[in-house]
Amino acid sequence: MKVTLSALDTSESSFTPLVVIELAQDVKEETKEWLKNRIIAKKKDGDNNDDFLTMAECQFIIKHELENLRAKGEKMIPGYPQAKLYPGKSLLRRLLTSGIVIQVFPLHDSEALKKLEDTWYTRFALKYQPIDSIRGYFGETIALYFGFLEYFTFALIPMAVIGLPYYLFVWEDYDKYVIFASFNLIWSTVILEVWKRGCANMTYRWGTLLMKRKFEEPRPGFHGVLGINSITGKEEPLYPSYKRQLRIYLVSLPFVCLCLYFSLYVMMIYFDMEVWALGLHENSGSEWTSVLLYVPSIIYAIVIEIMNRLYRYAAEFLTSWENHRLESAYQNHLILKVLVFNFLNCFASLFYIAFVLKDMKLLRQSLATLLITSQILNQIMESFLPYWLQRKHGVRVKRKVQALKADIDATLYEQVILEKEMGTYLGTFDDYLELFLQFGYVSLFSCVYPLAAAFAVLNNFTEVNSDALKMCRVFKRPFSEPSANIGVWQLAFETMSVISVVTNCALIGMSPQVNAVFPESKADLILIVVAVEHALLALKFILAFAIPDKPRHIQMKLARLEFESLEALKQQQMKLVTENLKEEPTESGKEKAT
Amino acid sequence: MKVTLSALDTSESSFTPLVVIELAQDVKEETKEWLKNRIIAKKKDGDNNDDFLTMAECQFIIKHELENLRAKGEKMIPGYPQAKLYPGKSLLRRLLTSGIVIQVFPLHDSEALKKLEDTWYTRFALKYQPIDSIRGYFGETIALYFGFLEYFTFALIPMAVIGLPYYLFVWEDYDKYVIFASFNLIWSTVILEVWKRGCANMTYRWGTLLMKRKFEEPRPGFHGVLGINSITGKEEPLYPSYKRQLRIYLVSLPFVCLCLYFSLYVMMIYFDMEVWALGLHENSGSEWTSVLLYVPSIIYAIVIEIMNRLYRYAAEFLTSWENHRLESAYQNHLILKVLVFNFLNCFASLFYIAFVLKDMKLLRQSLATLLITSQILNQIMESFLPYWLQRKHGVRVKRKVQALKADIDATLYEQVILEKEMGTYLGTFDDYLELFLQFGYVSLFSCVYPLAAAFAVLNNFTEVNSDALKMCRVFKRPFSEPSANIGVWQLAFETMSVISVVTNCALIGMSPQVNAVFPESKADLILIVVAVEHALLALKFILAFAIPDKPRHIQMKLARLEFESLEALKQQQMKLVTENLKEEPTESGKEKAT
Repeated sequence: MKVTLSALDTSESSFTPLVVIELAQDVKEETKEWLKNRIIAKKKDGDNNDDFLTMAECQFIIKHELENLRAKGEKMIPGYPQAKLYPGKSLLRRLLTSGIVIQVFPLHDSEALKKLEDTWYTRFALKYQPIDSIRGYFGETIALYFGFLEYFTFALIPMAVIGLPYYLFVWEDYDKYVIFASFNLIWSTVILEVWKRGCANMTYRWGTLLMKRKFEEPRPGFHGVLGINSITGKEEPLYPSYKRQLRIYLVSLPFVCLCLYFSLYVMMIYFDMEVWALGLHENSGSEWTSVLLYVPSIIYAIVIEIMNRLYRYAAEFLTSWENHRLESAYQNHLILKVLVFNFLNCFASLFYIAFVLKDMKLLRQSLATLLITSQILNQIMESFLPYWLQRKHGVRVKRKVQALKADIDATLYEQVILEKEMGTYLGTFDDYLELFLQFGYVSLFSCVYPLAAAFAVLNNFTEVNSDALKMCRVFKRPFSEPSANIGVWQLAFETMSVISVVTNCALIGMSPQVNAVFPESKADLILIVVAVEHALLALKFILAFAIPDKPRHIQMKLARLEFESLEALKQQQMKLVTENLKEEPTESGKEKAT
Repeated sequence: MKVTLSALDTSESSFTPLVVIELAQDVKEETKEWLKNRIIAKKKDGDNNDDFLTMAECQFIIKHELENLRAKGEKMIPGYPQAKLYPGKSLLRRLLTSGIVIQVFPLHDSEALKKLEDTWYTRFALKYQPIDSIRGYFGETIALYFGFLEYFTFALIPMAVIGLPYYLFVWEDYDKYVIFASFNLIWSTVILEVWKRGCANMTYRWGTLLMKRKFEEPRPGFHGVLGINSITGKEEPLYPSYKRQLRIYLVSLPFVCLCLYFSLYVMMIYFDMEVWALGLHENSGSEWTSVLLYVPSIIYAIVIEIMNRLYRYAAEFLTSWENHRLESAYQNHLILKVLVFNFLNCFASLFYIAFVLKDMKLLRQSLATLLITSQILNQIMESFLPYWLQRKHGVRVKRKVQALKADIDATLYEQVILEKEMGTYLGTFDDYLELFLQFGYVSLFSCVYPLAAAFAVLNNFTEVNSDALKMCRVFKRPFSEPSANIGVWQLAFETMSVISVVTNCALIGMSPQVNAVFPESKADLILIVVAVEHALLALKFILAFAIPDKPRHIQMKLARLEFESLEALKQQQMKLVTENLKEEPTESGKEKAT
């Protein structure tokens, strides 16, 4: 039998279970007793602020407190002499790595969840998502993802609308493509800048806009020598920054470069195989060899998938080994590593087709195939399949529980059993990555395939629903996590839009229609294209510079807050100075004068 | 007889004159009395903090207080019914525009000045400037200029050293130029990033790093309807931001574009005249026509100078009309306007020679002539000539004063008479502009003329001294002005270094040596050059991103300050909440829960 231990083990009658700690089956009584005492001791220090906080915030605080239970006098975990401890070591982390605690997760609140689902996705209607309710239930990070998904979908609509006639009327004139590409580039800059303003609006309302990295506690995996944090004056593990820098620049960076090189190498083998298969088919022309034509693509797709998985593990290991103090720094470094590799894996073959093979028809074909299949596969694999499996499992659990004798806690017991078997949501990383790659498909080669935006919009309208389903029904409820913006993803999207200026200009310059205008001098053509590209890039930067990142009313409110906090500090210091002056008036006066 | 009225008109014996207000000769007694009372009334409100402040800081405060003397009940200036006032109008500004007050300026402190000069420039020695003493005497803005000038000079030395052998050994191989240009580009990025760190270091020490635009008082010329500033809660004139935006984008921007077009048009006329003069000379070949060859250059130089002056007035008028609330915003908009125009005026002809005429020999010649003559002229016109005039004037004043009967105040009287006739230092704008154009000459065409950096270094070593002389002996002492960094100039220098990547890549691509490597395909050559340029630009941005703007120890200290000020605010608010709870415990509890 599993033992569930609520972190809020109060004796009150209105007890609401919030967080589940799943222990291993054979945990010793002594260990349980010790763990319970440590948690309760921690709890006694705090205030009872239940009324002021949302359920998600309470769960976040419990998680935070659990992660910051640190060893003081203990040399090992009671009952497990092999699980060594040293002062400052996170207890929860040692319990998890020793296999004593299996997992810690917050419980769903079925009533609130039902209410949220009703306004979110179960009743099909064209309306905005209830972002504030999502934030209340799942926290800021997830609400920001859904906010961005919605914003991005709406922002794509103008591109999709303008792209449609190109498909319907089979427009092939280069001047029309130039117009489309130019619109696209300016548009992508503007929407990214406007998102920053919208995001600042939301997070100001939620109170997380001013959240600073500096005030974050160290992440649980962070280790170092116990010392005094010079900013907060609190005791915590310290790790010198230069060591981290050395690890990043001397180990991680070369490793990533090596992986990129390897990925390109594999791609070249794939294209060689393609040529070889084509040659074989043309020579023999039999049925058997026409099947062979698909073999290189299939092998390449499988190899890419394997490489992505392996690389992801390596990136997680390396980033963890870099020993970042803050969760946000860890996430940023991990995202950067994975992003660069995924970008190359997904787009390298398209770049090769576009700029080496210069086969626009093949490019359009590959682009359409990649975009549409990846979207369909993603939605099935990510939401509907797990949901179906989850439902089947749910029915089984219900039967089991009904077979037991019904007692008071049957519902809670059933809920815990059900939810602890649910998958764990690993963060917004994969969801953002999907959007990022989609943005790449839409913008990088937009002048070759203007229909991409329309497909992206269609996909995202259903993606909102399937992601919502995933969050509510497929995964364990994630711990809420505050955040001020979408972080490194903003930079990633902006970089993509800069790259897309370059690729689109190059594609237009390569098109036969444009080349027909300059039949005698290719050099002149290239010069003109380069000049246009530079002008567009300059315009992009001027636009990004001219649009303020925060709306005016938010700027005003922040300035007011800053003014007030500095005034408060001034008053406090003035009080100190006055007190000092009273004690030793002459000496401190002299000091100031020198 | 002029009447001097010290703002610190105290009856103490240790009276140090700080600021001079020069009134017109025929000012009525009644007006003098009123002004004196207003100034003294203001003074009584404040504390006596003399011991805590440097002389420059005292003068800054006096200026600030004088500028913020605003009309309350008065409908006009007493004694001058035509000088109308309305509530909130700055008195000093109306006094100045009515010609009642001629000028307000701070006095030099001959003892401190002598001490400063001794450590700064009078004893020739290779040593760092006493930046902290300069800051103490002239304030942060001027100290930052001298700090930047020194830093920039030292930063140019490696470029100068590497550039020398190109001149000495007449290296003409393109690969060597490629190396020089590449080094140059990376170097210019790094020095600008490192400057930011050095600057943060200095201004942190001076306590101005955290200075925020938001806490600045409105500039004296700012007008609007009197209202409550929603940030500080103080009463001050307000002007809606959208009106300012309209003025900027609908009037100023088109005007600047028109001026730029006109400047280019004039340049084209100049080149036409050149061609015409050359043709005339070749046809006739007489002595008379060889003199004619210089006529277009002379006319163009004069026209450029006239255009610069006229444009400067227009820019100042327009920026003032835009009605910026803050002095810093006014300065930024003015600098941007003047900068763009000066850039075009100075470099457009060089660009034309480089990329349209493609005459590298002429480019090198023009570059050298422009750089060297502008540097020599600048130093003479800016410092030595005014200094010489100033000395002659000084001797005359001394004789006059000695002719008068000697009384106690003779020295002070002589000093005031002397200094009030000195020129007014109009801010660091022209000094920075000179450095900016120098940076342009050094970096934009560095691969054509590697010696430019050496000339720039030589010039700057003497520039430090001549600028110091100018500050100490030629101009009236300027009011000290706090500042956190070099502001918009950082952006200007960074933009210049981005443009220089483009120009240098283009110049290398155009060189005959590189063209000889690709004799058959010009298109390939261009593509390679463009690829290299993009790679360099990407590297530049990655470098700028990877180098933190503030040194680590400053980051830590700022984080600590922020943590403390937020803690102080928290405590203050907690106190308020506790007090509120005591008053009406149930109601406020309910509010929080909803």
